[in-house]
Amino acid sequence: MSKVTFSVSGKNESPAKFVAKARNFKIVIDEPLNLGGTDEGPNPVEYLLASYAGCLNVLGHIVAKEQGIDLLSLEIELEGDLDPDKIFGKPTDARPGYQEIRLKLKPECTASEEALDQWVKEVESRCPVNDNLLNSTPISVRVEKNIGISSN
Amino acid sequence: MSKVTFSVSGKNESPAKFVAKARNFKIVIDEPLNLGGTDEGPNPVEYLLASYAGCLNVLGHIVAKEQGIDLLSLEIELEGDLDPDKIFGKPTDARPGYQEIRLKLKPECTASEEALDQWVKEVESRCPVNDNLLNSTPISVRVEKNIGISSN
Repeated sequence: MSKVTFSVSGKNESPAKFVAKARNFKIVIDEPLNLGGTDEGPNPVEYLLASYAGCLNVLGHIVAKEQGIDLLSLEIELEGDLDPDKIFGKPTDARPGYQEIRLKLKPECTASEEALDQWVKEVESRCPVNDNLLNSTPISVRVEKNIGISSN
Repeated sequence: MSKVTFSVSGKNESPAKFVAKARNFKIVIDEPLNLGGTDEGPNPVEYLLASYAGCLNVLGHIVAKEQGIDLLSLEIELEGDLDPDKIFGKPTDARPGYQEIRLKLKPECTASEEALDQWVKEVESRCPVNDNLLNSTPISVRVEKNIGISSN
């Protein structure tokens, strides 16, 4: 298959609230009150974990089918730790992003531990979000000043 | 500030549909029909871009305030390309995740180009999701077989 391009765009509704559109879907991102938001949606780093969970679920099912594992359901728990000092401009050596992400996959199935070990290795190696978290991703940025409707 | 832990958990409702919970928020992740899903929500890699946009928005406003930029609004457009071959188990050398992410930030303000150049550099360097995409993040994985309600 050739490359596929995904796109998302949106606009802020307050300093912390951003409404993104992906195809016909609306995604509301905000921060809790104690992080300066209006708490109308999950925050960016919670969406990052959710994105990862959704991706592991898709791959979990594709790989289970290939490996003959009858996956009745899949629960996933994720946790990540970060130090917000850099976000708020305080002097720190800590990176701003997650310093570690911990995953727990709970497949409902009768497969052996060995089979599940093979399964999870294959799931991780083929999961796009796992790849983008584990390995560096090139990012290109453009800034284009928006002169606003009032200037037209 | 000391470290903060964020967590998300959830369960699949079909092979491609996953319902995640972040605090009191529900996040529905699915795939479009042509990627094997039921198209009831954005897909994982769309959520990844949305997470990034929301994070850039928060930092965009924090940094603008620090730098004396009156940011009236912020629009963000993101695109990412990936090759789905590895996801579907086809032989390929391509990584499974985004090979490149392109960002366009459209700040509504009167700041000079030089000021916006300084602004965007600072935003990127302090954005958690930017950090997790640009740099490697340690991930630990546990698999715990779920014996299911029917086995209790």
